[in-house]
Amino acid sequence: MKIFPLLAIGVSTESTKGRPLDVRYHLILNNEKIILDNLGFNDSDQVQLDEINIHSEHQETLTGLLSDRLTLQDNQKIVIQNLEKDIPISSIYDAYLKLYLLSLREVKPNSLNLDGIFNALPNIAWTNIGPVDPNEVEGMRAEHQNIIVKSVDKFPCMTDYVIPSGVRIADGSRVRLGAYLSEGTTVMHEGFINFNAGTLGSAMIEGRISAGVIVGKNSDLGGGCSTMGTLSGGNNVKISVGEDCLLGANSGLGIPLGDRCIVEAGLYLTAGSKVERKDKEGKVIETVKASELSNHSDLLFIRNSITGSIECRPNIKSVELNETLHSND
Amino acid sequence: MKIFPLLAIGVSTESTKGRPLDVRYHLILNNEKIILDNLGFNDSDQVQLDEINIHSEHQETLTGLLSDRLTLQDNQKIVIQNLEKDIPISSIYDAYLKLYLLSLREVKPNSLNLDGIFNALPNIAWTNIGPVDPNEVEGMRAEHQNIIVKSVDKFPCMTDYVIPSGVRIADGSRVRLGAYLSEGTTVMHEGFINFNAGTLGSAMIEGRISAGVIVGKNSDLGGGCSTMGTLSGGNNVKISVGEDCLLGANSGLGIPLGDRCIVEAGLYLTAGSKVERKDKEGKVIETVKASELSNHSDLLFIRNSITGSIECRPNIKSVELNETLHSND
Amino acid sequence: MKIFPLLAIGVSTESTKGRPLDVRYHLILNNEKIILDNLGFNDSDQVQLDEINIHSEHQETLTGLLSDRLTLQDNQKIVIQNLEKDIPISSIYDAYLKLYLLSLREVKPNSLNLDGIFNALPNIAWTNIGPVDPNEVEGMRAEHQNIIVKSVDKFPCMTDYVIPSGVRIADGSRVRLGAYLSEGTTVMHEGFINFNAGTLGSAMIEGRISAGVIVGKNSDLGGGCSTMGTLSGGNNVKISVGEDCLLGANSGLGIPLGDRCIVEAGLYLTAGSKVERKDKEGKVIETVKASELSNHSDLLFIRNSITGSIECRPNIKSVELNETLHSND
Repeated sequence: MKIFPLLAIGVSTESTKGRPLDVRYHLILNNEKIILDNLGFNDSDQVQLDEINIHSEHQETLTGLLSDRLTLQDNQKIVIQNLEKDIPISSIYDAYLKLYLLSLREVKPNSLNLDGIFNALPNIAWTNIGPVDPNEVEGMRAEHQNIIVKSVDKFPCMTDYVIPSGVRIADGSRVRLGAYLSEGTTVMHEGFINFNAGTLGSAMIEGRISAGVIVGKNSDLGGGCSTMGTLSGGNNVKISVGEDCLLGANSGLGIPLGDRCIVEAGLYLTAGSKVERKDKEGKVIETVKASELSNHSDLLFIRNSITGSIECRPNIKSVELNETLHSND
Repeated sequence: MKIFPLLAIGVSTESTKGRPLDVRYHLILNNEKIILDNLGFNDSDQVQLDEINIHSEHQETLTGLLSDRLTLQDNQKIVIQNLEKDIPISSIYDAYLKLYLLSLREVKPNSLNLDGIFNALPNIAWTNIGPVDPNEVEGMRAEHQNIIVKSVDKFPCMTDYVIPSGVRIADGSRVRLGAYLSEGTTVMHEGFINFNAGTLGSAMIEGRISAGVIVGKNSDLGGGCSTMGTLSGGNNVKISVGEDCLLGANSGLGIPLGDRCIVEAGLYLTAGSKVERKDKEGKVIETVKASELSNHSDLLFIRNSITGSIECRPNIKSVELNETLHSND
Repeated sequence: MKIFPLLAIGVSTESTKGRPLDVRYHLILNNEKIILDNLGFNDSDQVQLDEINIHSEHQETLTGLLSDRLTLQDNQKIVIQNLEKDIPISSIYDAYLKLYLLSLREVKPNSLNLDGIFNALPNIAWTNIGPVDPNEVEGMRAEHQNIIVKSVDKFPCMTDYVIPSGVRIADGSRVRLGAYLSEGTTVMHEGFINFNAGTLGSAMIEGRISAGVIVGKNSDLGGGCSTMGTLSGGNNVKISVGEDCLLGANSGLGIPLGDRCIVEAGLYLTAGSKVERKDKEGKVIETVKASELSNHSDLLFIRNSITGSIECRPNIKSVELNETLHSND
């Protein structure tokens, strides 16, 4: 992957014992381009980022510029991180760098080595005064009585670190840093996107995108729908949703879908579900496990409301997203 | 509609480029009454609001009073808005005024012209330092390192602008400004209410009320239940729930319900579902599409757990809300 | 219950009219042990907590120590609360004390008398400037323009008051004070835990644990799954989940489960559902109401995707939690 090697400069907040709690990167670049430049380094007279080699002596200059532009708190220090290649994650600095790359849309889900990420990320109390060691919150109340702890988790919310262009996210607490949201993606209040998962084009997300799951362009995940993940629950096949698909509200998906497929509202299609496959005339052709229909296109899955059987019919209805809802400017 | 014409005075926060980001109204009145008076203007010696004609010279006095009572931030300016009649929305000022009218319970859902609202509302990063242009958040971190971005959306949370009396809202991020919540409404953590939607009386809401959907008094929407909306998903019929109804947990509704109806937990009733209609003795009378039962009362919808068919039986069980849960004082 | 009598010292925030809004306890002890000591009282030279009798004259000393360690805001006062025995709740002070005992894991769900708790707890606007009377929020905006109201509810979020060790809670707004979370519990974004409910061991919670519901160790509640509560919905039987169980995503549970049971993704098992019980060879043994299988172990509940009937089979698959996800340090 030619994105590596990388140079990243940012700020880490530390616990009272000096343990790093998070990393906020302000600058990420490789030998080809500037990936992130949040504080306008490149506008400075002192440095032209596109001339910088990631191993060059400019690192010190960049650090100096960062110090000039940010007032570091007492519990913060500057981080300079070099990542030579895509090896398993062994530090919080690498973990954040890879999560940034995903949310900045530099790399697609399932293309980075994320082994070790759970061990590298400490559990954090995410508060209105910044990240805090969960064991230190109560002791801080003497000084800060109105500490609000919005989350106790290894992963922060994406919107507190990266806000990709052209997206709406109705509830920031439901999209983790490391999610990949393409331009034109709207995540409604009931939507959720885990790290290393996301959308490859304009999409309406009112359901849950589990880690590892990707959704193609112009697809619509209805309210409360579920996509099976591989982190828990025992499923080993990576689920995906193709283009122009609709998962109905409160439905569920346990197989990878092709393009132009519909899963009816309320139907949970597990990989092991036996499905009656019908032709255009409504005649049953065969009975197959849903997993055998993985990645097939133009299918409509419903539960027959008289016989109770799950049926798979040719899908002739096209899904169209409401344009107004996806003009996220 | 006699609520118009209206006069409203408030404060708009602007981006660094002078683009309005939100409007917080502090005073709304028409020729008949004071609809909103948040900062006690009417207690002032200088003005009696009920004597004010919305076209009068008092507007300047009111603006002066607002300036006296609020310390405007550098990026804020006073807004005076006149809305003569209920025309399509062409500005953020009108959009907020109409959303206020809904959440202040002055007008019921589906009674205002909301055309153009998505275009009129800019996409905003809702933060702990107020509304911010999403593109300007990162640049602000030099000054405000602990910016928390709770949402990136066109609509704000209702509770940050209007708190109607006698309601509980366990998670404010799940009720948009423009929602209509009657006295005695409890919205639990899994509940959601979109703009131009809501409850017409005391209600327990643990499911999702989509835009345009209204719920009658004494009805109970169980955890995770879904009501189909018309903004996305392709449905054209406005869904509603009558009085004394129960949508079971994880159920779904694709038709308008009459009064005293129950949809069993876990059952998604789409408009196209074929339903076996039974009489009191349990004999099948006919098989109909669910849409043909729209607005009928006293029905119980279940999926027969032996045959798998969706059945509609006469409902003889009455729904009673737990009084303790609805005394929201 | 030998935990009583108790002595607790904390701080109550009051409305402008002197009505108590919340209680933050910093010290809780009984005659046997120190249950909570948030601000290091016991490290002080002036007092050894384990020598204190709850009726002793040390109460004044403790109050003095609390005043020394915290700067009280103008609208706060010190609370000293004695609770002699487990009687119905008649004050906000007792209500908070009992909710603390649950979240501090001192008492298990369903073991305290919580009668009267809804009446004792006022409805509060939970804001970034602390708890506020919902009717007083708008008037405060003259002084605090950026008030964020994250919730209007009788119960606060647990993480704003108690953070138990060894847990992750991805969205703090979904766990109420009074929830009981055992070490090793992970509550994902779609998880929810009400007061007087929780987990008795390591668990993955991506679904909703209603008031009164308990979940045994090594069990996994899939995304969006529902457990029926007794507060609303008309169910009178307390639901519980045994050890090593799996509730699939978007499933639902209306009976208490034994150990090593699975409810298939998408299946809502109500107490009244008729179920076809099968033996190991797949032969139907009997048709029973699900409630008759309450508390039985080693059962797998699925809906046959061809016949549509709910089946109960012997469960031979064991559920294993992903260890990495539960090492919450």
